Amino acid sequence: MTTYWNNYPTIQNKLQAVCSFLEAELRLNNPTIQNTLIELAQSGGKLLRPAFCLLFAELGSNQKQSDLIKVAASLEMLHMATLIHDDIIDDSPLRRGNITIQSKYGKDVAVYTGDVLFTKFFEVLISVMNGSEYLAYNAQTMKRILLGELNQMTIRFKLDETIDDYLRSIKGKTAELFWLACKEGAYFGGCDTKTVRLAGRIGRNIGLAFQIYDDILDYTADSSELKKPVLEDLGQGIYTLPLLLAKQKAPEKLLPYLNKKAAITPEEIAEVAKLVVQLGGVTQAKQMAQAFTQKALKDIEALPASPAKEIIQTLTLQLLQRHY
Amino acid sequence: MTTYWNNYPTIQNKLQAVCSFLEAELRLNNPTIQNTLIELAQSGGKLLRPAFCLLFAELGSNQKQSDLIKVAASLEMLHMATLIHDDIIDDSPLRRGNITIQSKYGKDVAVYTGDVLFTKFFEVLISVMNGSEYLAYNAQTMKRILLGELNQMTIRFKLDETIDDYLRSIKGKTAELFWLACKEGAYFGGCDTKTVRLAGRIGRNIGLAFQIYDDILDYTADSSELKKPVLEDLGQGIYTLPLLLAKQKAPEKLLPYLNKKAAITPEEIAEVAKLVVQLGGVTQAKQMAQAFTQKALKDIEALPASPAKEIIQTLTLQLLQRHY
Repeated sequence: MTTYWNNYPTIQNKLQAVCSFLEAELRLNNPTIQNTLIELAQSGGKLLRPAFCLLFAELGSNQKQSDLIKVAASLEMLHMATLIHDDIIDDSPLRRGNITIQSKYGKDVAVYTGDVLFTKFFEVLISVMNGSEYLAYNAQTMKRILLGELNQMTIRFKLDETIDDYLRSIKGKTAELFWLACKEGAYFGGCDTKTVRLAGRIGRNIGLAFQIYDDILDYTADSSELKKPVLEDLGQGIYTLPLLLAKQKAPEKLLPYLNKKAAITPEEIAEVAKLVVQLGGVTQAKQMAQAFTQKALKDIEALPASPAKEIIQTLTLQLLQRHY
Repeated sequence: MTTYWNNYPTIQNKLQAVCSFLEAELRLNNPTIQNTLIELAQSGGKLLRPAFCLLFAELGSNQKQSDLIKVAASLEMLHMATLIHDDIIDDSPLRRGNITIQSKYGKDVAVYTGDVLFTKFFEVLISVMNGSEYLAYNAQTMKRILLGELNQMTIRFKLDETIDDYLRSIKGKTAELFWLACKEGAYFGGCDTKTVRLAGRIGRNIGLAFQIYDDILDYTADSSELKKPVLEDLGQGIYTLPLLLAKQKAPEKLLPYLNKKAAITPEEIAEVAKLVVQLGGVTQAKQMAQAFTQKALKDIEALPASPAKEIIQTLTLQLLQRHY
């Protein structure tokens, strides 16, 4: 785990418990895969989803930590599984600054490793919420994430991709898991119905803002800062919000590049990136992210008073200033 | 569905309902994937696992068909998901006589399609058995199948692979799902505890025999009969029972070929296949399969009298004579 949570010792301790649980659960009789998974779990992810889950749980009256830690950990398992399969699709060499499983061991191992994580995810869920309607929410979230990813694949190199297409895609692939994290945190923490509903909505808006920022970073960060190759999305025909907004403003400037599809050169990609910034795509995308963050902040205000509420507020504001 | 079940109209009708359910469930908002999945579901698989599940269910007193059809269908979903990911690993061009998803649409689509099926599998389970201990059995089976596959990958080209290694691998990758199919069929059909336990044991032994026959066919069938490329396993370093038995008898004849590992030529593979037959590897493997079938038949005798029992008996005997 990172030093990201140093200022919040309570949540840091709980996240430490999540990490220990993950490490114990990821023990397989295949040492190669086991070590890779533990490496991935420890490689400096901020554990944002478990953190939001546990923070919302603190708002309620039911503080059975052993169960809450498992719920929080299950979210990270699902997240890791989708990351691993994602990297296969993107053929991505780096993830969290480390070599990805598929570039280290091949796509074959990456396919099964992701599959094993999906199973572990369900095993943990069943151990903690068998009989609950939240099992179905979890399956639904997993499906929506996958359909979001599939949808993103089918709109690759689609020159008439709309902002709605983009939002639909990130709603599935990112916002859905934040929705679940906050909602089930509140639910299993014993919050009232209203708070559980608010939690889900806050999670979704945070997720949308989070993904938009992630996509903005592709146009502003360099690869040492971001720990993943810059602008790989663009070369693979994934057109994110800053580009879509710039293209709306001056299609004639951008389409000649985009028409080259996969044949676009790294120099041309750099040109496109420059144009996107010049045309205000990044600024406008930031405004959209801020709008989602503001919605989340407004809902957060309506949460019951608690130290956790203040941390949720601070975290949500921090998402507006993140550089990596 | 095939004509395989023409002589058993009751079970054929039920399997037809399984097919209809699968087709309805496999509707996605991605038409390419949807059509591919429906094609795969219809492409002449014998639906053996759903069939065994439904037959064992008929032995009991609880005949709520809507639930039983879902349970049976969930087994085929899990099976299809593992087939799709399997074909990625094996880089297999054909499955059930059709081009595989990964060779038609690429590995990327195949990864997500399998993932979506895993999710559908869990969705169906949750809809029919939320709160039951059988949810955990299902997750456990999925995990064992995957670990069986992973295990098979890690022992590729392992010249000292033992018969125990082989049995462990097929126990996970094949027998486990037959175990589950028979056991949960009996359970949800309302059988008594003894019958449920017998059902599981019968399923496991049938599964072991089934996989050994499958591996034998690699050495005896030609590709038009088998509908998949013959002896692809060998070239990929997967050493199955007939080869392992032959190697035990005359290692000096086979090791010079196997030492070439992936560099083995198609001509040499044909040589190996001939040697395996000559050294009695096929005959001996058949004897082992028969031993598992006999165990299953003995347990089947102890099942309560019923028309389903007789069909289970006949089916199990047929497994000894199958050519494809």
